[in-house]
Amino acid sequence: MSTTNRQVRLAARPVGEPRPTDWQHVEEPVGEPGDGEFLVRVLCLSIDPAMRGWMNAGRSYIRPVEIGEVMRAGAVGRVVASHHPGFAVGDHVSGSFGVQEYCVSNGLGVTKVDPGAAPLPTYLGTLGMSGLTAYFGLIDIGRPEPGQTVVVSGAAGAVGSVVGQIAKILGCRVVGIAGGADKCRMIVEEFGFDAAIDYQSEDVRKALREHAPNGVDVYFDNVGGEILDAVLLCLARGARIVVCGAISQYNSTKPQGPANYLSLLVNRATMTGMVVFDYADRYGEGIARMAAWRAEGRLKSLEDVVSGSVEDFPDTLMRLFRGGNRGKLVLKIAD
Amino acid sequence: MSTTNRQVRLAARPVGEPRPTDWQHVEEPVGEPGDGEFLVRVLCLSIDPAMRGWMNAGRSYIRPVEIGEVMRAGAVGRVVASHHPGFAVGDHVSGSFGVQEYCVSNGLGVTKVDPGAAPLPTYLGTLGMSGLTAYFGLIDIGRPEPGQTVVVSGAAGAVGSVVGQIAKILGCRVVGIAGGADKCRMIVEEFGFDAAIDYQSEDVRKALREHAPNGVDVYFDNVGGEILDAVLLCLARGARIVVCGAISQYNSTKPQGPANYLSLLVNRATMTGMVVFDYADRYGEGIARMAAWRAEGRLKSLEDVVSGSVEDFPDTLMRLFRGGNRGKLVLKIAD
Repeated sequence: MSTTNRQVRLAARPVGEPRPTDWQHVEEPVGEPGDGEFLVRVLCLSIDPAMRGWMNAGRSYIRPVEIGEVMRAGAVGRVVASHHPGFAVGDHVSGSFGVQEYCVSNGLGVTKVDPGAAPLPTYLGTLGMSGLTAYFGLIDIGRPEPGQTVVVSGAAGAVGSVVGQIAKILGCRVVGIAGGADKCRMIVEEFGFDAAIDYQSEDVRKALREHAPNGVDVYFDNVGGEILDAVLLCLARGARIVVCGAISQYNSTKPQGPANYLSLLVNRATMTGMVVFDYADRYGEGIARMAAWRAEGRLKSLEDVVSGSVEDFPDTLMRLFRGGNRGKLVLKIAD
Repeated sequence: MSTTNRQVRLAARPVGEPRPTDWQHVEEPVGEPGDGEFLVRVLCLSIDPAMRGWMNAGRSYIRPVEIGEVMRAGAVGRVVASHHPGFAVGDHVSGSFGVQEYCVSNGLGVTKVDPGAAPLPTYLGTLGMSGLTAYFGLIDIGRPEPGQTVVVSGAAGAVGSVVGQIAKILGCRVVGIAGGADKCRMIVEEFGFDAAIDYQSEDVRKALREHAPNGVDVYFDNVGGEILDAVLLCLARGARIVVCGAISQYNSTKPQGPANYLSLLVNRATMTGMVVFDYADRYGEGIARMAAWRAEGRLKSLEDVVSGSVEDFPDTLMRLFRGGNRGKLVLKIAD
């Protein structure tokens, strides 16, 4: 075992897109777990659009990462030393371990995962925060009914691909919006969506009129911007918009509001923000149902695993904003 | 009784602010009520921000007024001839009679009103569509709880002044946003709001931090634009935004979306559109409660009555967009 813990810390708050100079690469000695603590060797890092928001100052749904602090990241790892009665050496665990090779934890917010039941990256995707975000956002906020039309943007991403599959399981018609022909083919052929709209080559509003002729009952929004504005013009009466994210806006220094928001009035529709952490006491329910669907072959997981080291984190993060990933983006830093 | 019916018809669809050339002043013979019909002498016209929307082409919550058609308007009048068993000469009635002096009606959507119980303009304001919009928007969509903070824009207007007073009756802390010191004084001193913010002379966001230090639980929005964006930054967790109107945007050729809408996510908040017509089967409930509050002196009505003729309609409508009215704007065209 190494005695050095390589880390990526936040060096500066980015203006617009994060740049290499916004990060600081640090090496420090691996921490010593005290009483009631254990040491985790981090194996896989979850790479999430939300990370961009955590880098900003100011009040949000979670405190900002401070300058000089190890960048926050969900991760899975293996316990390599323990003075905690609940975690033994060799256990695999999932938690917010940060962009570093080793993390000392007291077990708060850490759950054990079974590498025999699913590959480790799946515990960051479908059976992790991404899946839970999809599950609770769609079911609790979107409240789709069988036969209704569900539209999801970022449909080839970690959250969107799960949203669409769950909506299909619930008996809905599902239209995914994604960038590029490959992603569009994938969500229809592999994930079973009814239709896909390629926002890079199609007029989203026109395509929605074709694929959702009776209007959009539920829109699960991961992207914001022009796509949100196009969907707003195609709502069914009583539509529910789930505001999960807005990846098109995160690097913008002048965010764009939905100019067509008065469509909420015309259609008696609702736009509601959701944060997965609010459902912590129901994570068990979500994971159990998704694991069952997965076992039945009805819910497929797709992870886009980049093999590298913590030093590759800044570049890997940028892949998200360039639409480079398919499914859950994971940076694997050790076996 | 005159044999001539003066009318204002839509001549062209306005681009931006309605101009005199968008209207056509027409005289035609007074209609003859047939079997099951009656003739109404229109006395008072309701002047509403929503009228601007009705002038646009395209799908909305109500069909557009067509070019050449009498402009739609709520109104109260007196029955002057009748072949309808339910309406007698001398009855006072409220309905969508249009911008004209006489209207033949079959009684659909027409209700009788009692000029002894309240002045006729009140049946267009607090005891009419404006009051009902306030009542159902606040109670059904806003769902305020006692002790919560309710903010309303257009607070000195027909809807806003009622929203604030009902919120006070329900035990809320109420902050009104209005334009100018006079309106602000009025909503506090006459309508009992806890505080007023003058958007013309104050920084709305700063003032909200002072007057709503625990955040805004319910925002009833009549104006949209920059004020909506300011309130979005001051939401309490779980806030409800009622999208009732957006008078700041109706004449804009490039509508402005709420750039800060991601505050819905941060605060797990909801933004919902409402149209009063959806509550038609509960109008009785709303009117009964508001009439009772009015009788108890807890709900004050304010009407801004302009005396004139149908020819004054175009100018009177423009007063709304210039913030010229206090309370319900009514054009009285006959005694």
